[in-house]
Amino acid sequence: MNQNTDSVTIREVGLRDGLQSIARILPTERKLEWIRDAYAAGQREIEVGSFVPARTLPQLADTAELVAYAKTLPGLTVSVLVPNLKGAERALESGAHALLVPLSASHAHSLANLRKAPDDVVQEIARIRDRRDAAGSACRIEVGMSTAFGCTIQGRVEVSEVLRLLRAVLDVGVDQVGLADTVGYADPLMVSRLFEQCFSVAGARLACGHFHDTRGLGLANVYAAWQAGVRRFDACLAGIGGCPHAPGASGNVSSEDVAYLFASMGVATGVDFDALIGLRAKVAHWLDGEALHGTIWRAGLPKTMLAVA
Amino acid sequence: MNQNTDSVTIREVGLRDGLQSIARILPTERKLEWIRDAYAAGQREIEVGSFVPARTLPQLADTAELVAYAKTLPGLTVSVLVPNLKGAERALESGAHALLVPLSASHAHSLANLRKAPDDVVQEIARIRDRRDAAGSACRIEVGMSTAFGCTIQGRVEVSEVLRLLRAVLDVGVDQVGLADTVGYADPLMVSRLFEQCFSVAGARLACGHFHDTRGLGLANVYAAWQAGVRRFDACLAGIGGCPHAPGASGNVSSEDVAYLFASMGVATGVDFDALIGLRAKVAHWLDGEALHGTIWRAGLPKTMLAVA
Repeated sequence: MNQNTDSVTIREVGLRDGLQSIARILPTERKLEWIRDAYAAGQREIEVGSFVPARTLPQLADTAELVAYAKTLPGLTVSVLVPNLKGAERALESGAHALLVPLSASHAHSLANLRKAPDDVVQEIARIRDRRDAAGSACRIEVGMSTAFGCTIQGRVEVSEVLRLLRAVLDVGVDQVGLADTVGYADPLMVSRLFEQCFSVAGARLACGHFHDTRGLGLANVYAAWQAGVRRFDACLAGIGGCPHAPGASGNVSSEDVAYLFASMGVATGVDFDALIGLRAKVAHWLDGEALHGTIWRAGLPKTMLAVA
Repeated sequence: MNQNTDSVTIREVGLRDGLQSIARILPTERKLEWIRDAYAAGQREIEVGSFVPARTLPQLADTAELVAYAKTLPGLTVSVLVPNLKGAERALESGAHALLVPLSASHAHSLANLRKAPDDVVQEIARIRDRRDAAGSACRIEVGMSTAFGCTIQGRVEVSEVLRLLRAVLDVGVDQVGLADTVGYADPLMVSRLFEQCFSVAGARLACGHFHDTRGLGLANVYAAWQAGVRRFDACLAGIGGCPHAPGASGNVSSEDVAYLFASMGVATGVDFDALIGLRAKVAHWLDGEALHGTIWRAGLPKTMLAVA
């Protein structure tokens, strides 16, 4: 259990994981405003989009333009998601600081989602690293290991398989790995145990926790991962990014609730809470009619925190 | 940190803390059905109501009748809330197994809520214990220390004051004490620290955690309290019991989400999950139009738990 006072980074993934699950297309102008305001609110890492074919996700077709703008903001780490080598080539061209490749620990989910077995994805990641190195790029390669806590298709995912794939991507030379529970199957004890085991394999290269709040345990899982030593978390403003199979169910943990959790515990995130809540109101207006989530925006900060907020 | 496999008790307080915050009066017949079904779902401790003047809380005017019925269910611990000696006398007459006296650690909240300073409430508790002993009753006296983590009126509540009042009620001879965050000001680190300090004073007589989800941290706080050694939690079915000052804000942690948290972690609660979700649907129908909360009922159990549920 590590309860030091290291700061925590909340990577905003609403523009990618959030918007890709919403059918309506948010105009590029709005996205630029979102990035600008998130930066002004103190967020220093934003996943601005994904390099996938525009016909697959027309919501994210303007990713290259968003990268170009976001790169003008000093000190902001700009990341994008890429499903394969082709996407990675576009990411390298765009000049993004980091690219994230999803790798599903569930064989069944990997086949359904990427039409490749996990080990084939590992090989693709090796090709991405080769291309990055050949290009002389400093772009950071991060793997997001999804279904690490279980899978809606195959159910149970063995810890041994998570650890095997973790070693495989580390051997391939990726810079960072995160564990993701995109289906809301994790509980805080599972999180403690799996992160502890993965830290013993990956050390500081294990560098992200990605949790959804589908079953109400999102923030408890963030807390458990923090106790295990995680200092960087993905989150979506207003908790967008719901699961299409469970209408109304929560999506990603909400950035503002995660910011509140850490602020209340006295852990620095660099986030200006009022500014983030202001941006949430703006995004809620833009996405009027979509299912939004999160809790703190309703009740506001406790009286005990108003002086320090 | 205590991560053994002790079972956990979820005390249902929806009939008291939940219904008292809802203006409509649930007919006695419905309440009896709720108690019967909660018992059938495996709940073994229920706070059925409160002995307060009927004009103050007409929603709870049938408490004596509910106690009488609940006492016919073998192995069920039937508790009631009482604000003062007069209420305690009615509780003793009713034959309830336990009576809970609220004590606010916040001076300002105590004056506003009970029109008495905390030390005057301690004296009232002493009188209640005397009356209980004089009656030769085995009724358990429990104190619920509210605003232990902060107060909407006075803001900060000092830990030293919580510990002082804890010692005072233990000296008076109460059987059990719980810590409550009825305003949603607690975070998991505060919970860890305060429970650890209070355990060192009260030992096993510290026996309940009562959390509201007003700011999204309810389940994270339950988890932190469990880590600190708490094995009994209050919860309301469907998370009823909202805060009147924050419309739409969540109330108590929901019984079904707490049951899911522990079931997922492999900790026994005795609760039959499907039966509890069935009762939730019934109560949601009875309270149609009221703000209900909780998360797991939408998404359902993870595939990984369906075999063991």
